[in-house]
Amino acid sequence: MSKIRAAVIGYGNIGHFVLDALESAPDFEVAGIIRRNPDNIPHRLKEYKVAGNISELGKVDVAILCTPSRSCEKYAAEIMAQGINVVDSFDIHTEIVATRNRLDKVAKEHNAVSIISAGWDPGSDSVIRALLDACAPKGITYTNFGPGMSMGHTVAVKAIEGVKAALSMTIPTGTSIHRRMVYVELEDGHDLDSVAAKIKADPYFAHDETHVTAVDSVDDLLDMGHGVNLVRKGVSGHTQGQRFEFNMSINNPALTGQILVSTARAAMKQRPGAYTLIEIPVIDMLYGERDELIKRLV
Amino acid sequence: MSKIRAAVIGYGNIGHFVLDALESAPDFEVAGIIRRNPDNIPHRLKEYKVAGNISELGKVDVAILCTPSRSCEKYAAEIMAQGINVVDSFDIHTEIVATRNRLDKVAKEHNAVSIISAGWDPGSDSVIRALLDACAPKGITYTNFGPGMSMGHTVAVKAIEGVKAALSMTIPTGTSIHRRMVYVELEDGHDLDSVAAKIKADPYFAHDETHVTAVDSVDDLLDMGHGVNLVRKGVSGHTQGQRFEFNMSINNPALTGQILVSTARAAMKQRPGAYTLIEIPVIDMLYGERDELIKRLV
Repeated sequence: MSKIRAAVIGYGNIGHFVLDALESAPDFEVAGIIRRNPDNIPHRLKEYKVAGNISELGKVDVAILCTPSRSCEKYAAEIMAQGINVVDSFDIHTEIVATRNRLDKVAKEHNAVSIISAGWDPGSDSVIRALLDACAPKGITYTNFGPGMSMGHTVAVKAIEGVKAALSMTIPTGTSIHRRMVYVELEDGHDLDSVAAKIKADPYFAHDETHVTAVDSVDDLLDMGHGVNLVRKGVSGHTQGQRFEFNMSINNPALTGQILVSTARAAMKQRPGAYTLIEIPVIDMLYGERDELIKRLV
Repeated sequence: MSKIRAAVIGYGNIGHFVLDALESAPDFEVAGIIRRNPDNIPHRLKEYKVAGNISELGKVDVAILCTPSRSCEKYAAEIMAQGINVVDSFDIHTEIVATRNRLDKVAKEHNAVSIISAGWDPGSDSVIRALLDACAPKGITYTNFGPGMSMGHTVAVKAIEGVKAALSMTIPTGTSIHRRMVYVELEDGHDLDSVAAKIKADPYFAHDETHVTAVDSVDDLLDMGHGVNLVRKGVSGHTQGQRFEFNMSINNPALTGQILVSTARAAMKQRPGAYTLIEIPVIDMLYGERDELIKRLV
C-alpha cells in the first residue's frame, strides 16, 4: 500500500509535534516542510526536504497547516486549488461556521477535502460535546480548561507597554468560568500596578478574574501541559440527572499535532468538501483494517 | 418538515425508554409499537398503535429494535427487506463485526440502512475509545463498568437450581477487572454454600472475584443506575503519558433508549449499508440545523 504523502506547512511549535506524529504513523511519509525562509533548516529537519512552496515537494496528498489561525483559510484555499487536501486547527470559535462554509465551496470546486478546527478544542472536545448531546439532548455542558498556558492571552499581555515577557495561565474554577493568572517580566521604568491595570482593562481579561504577578524569569515557569474537564448533566428521554464527565491532562501541542495527523488520514477518505471533526466518522481517523478496528474498539 | 416515523420493536425495559426518547424528540413521530401479543396493551401505550407486524403501521422510516441481542439480526434483515432502516443495541461484542458485515449485504440489497450496537457499550463508549485512539495511537484503554446491574450475569444466576430471584452487580476494581456481587433469594431446601459454589463455577463467574449473599428480597435492591470509568494513557507522536478519562453515572436503559433514538435519526442520513457508531459522523445523531450545531458544539 502506498503511503500518504503529507506536507507540513509551518515549522513552529505545532509543526514540530506534527512531524513527531507523522514519523510515528505507519501509513504516512513526510513529503516535506514548508517554511517562509527555506534556507533556515534546523538540525531536526536535516533528513527532510524543506521548501518555500508546496509545489516544490512533488506529489502531496494532504497538507497539514501549522500556521496561525488567521492565515489558515488563505493557505487552505491556495493549497486546495492545487487539488491537495488540507487540515488545520483553526481555533477562532466564532468564525468556524463561516470559514467552513467558504472553504466548502473552494473544496468542491477543486475536488479536494478540507477539515478545519481539528485540534483538541475545537476538535476532539467538540466530538465529545456532540456525542454527549446525542446521549442527553437536554441539559448543560461546561468545558473547563486548564491549568495551562493560553497562547491568545499571553500574546495579548506581551503587546502591553512595559511588558518584557509574559505568561497567562488559564485556571478552571468550574461551570466554564476561568481565572487568569498572569506572570510578567517588567521593562525597566515600569511598575506592576500600572501594567496590571492595563492588562485587566484589555478585552481578553476584562470579564475574567485576573491576577498579575511580577517574576524574574517567565521562561522558568513555562510548561506545555494543559488540561480539560468537560461535564454534562442532562436528560435522556424523560430521565433526569444523567451525568457525564471527560477529563484529560496532556501536552498541549503534542495532542494538537497528533489529532492533525489523524485528521489528515481522515481527509483522504471524505468526499470533496469542508468538514469539522463532528462531521466525519471517527473510524476514518484511525490506522488499520476496518474489521480489526471495529473488533478492537466497538 | 415531515417527521421521521419510527416503529418500536418490542416493549420491554428498553422499549419503554425508547418511547420516552421518541416523545421528547421534536423531529420524530411514533408509527407504532410491535409486540408478540398485540392485544396486550399496557396503559402507557393507549394513545399508540400496537400491532403484531410492522406492515400494519403504515409508512415507517426507521425501526428501533428493543429485542434481545440474539434476535436482532433476524429482525433487522426482515425489516430491511421492506426497505425500512433499522437500529439496534446488539451487545455481543465478539459477534459485532460478522453481524455488521452480513447486515451490510442485506442493507445494500434493499437500499436500507442498519446501525448496530448503538447503545452505550457497545455504542457511545466505542466512539470515545476510537477518538482516544486517534488522540494517542499507542497506549492502553481500560473500560471499567459499574457499579451497576449486569443483565447477562443476573440471567445466568437465575438459571441455577435453588435460586428463586437474583441480582448480579458489576463492581469496577480498575484496569478492566470487575468484582461480581451476587444477591440471591433461595428456594426452600437449598443452602447458600452449595448455590454459591454453583454460581462461582459458572463460566460467567469462573474468572472473576465473586461474592454471593443471600437476601430476603432481591427486588428491594434493584436500581437501574449504572456507570462507566474509561481511561486511556498513551502516546501522541513521540510524547508519552497523555492521560484521558471518561466517566458517566446514568440510568442504564434510559441512556440506551436515548442513544437508539439519536442513532435512528442518523440512520436517515447514511447511504445504504450497515454501520457501527464509530463509522458515522456524530453530528448526524443530533436534531437541528447543521450550521447551528457546529456553532454550538465545535
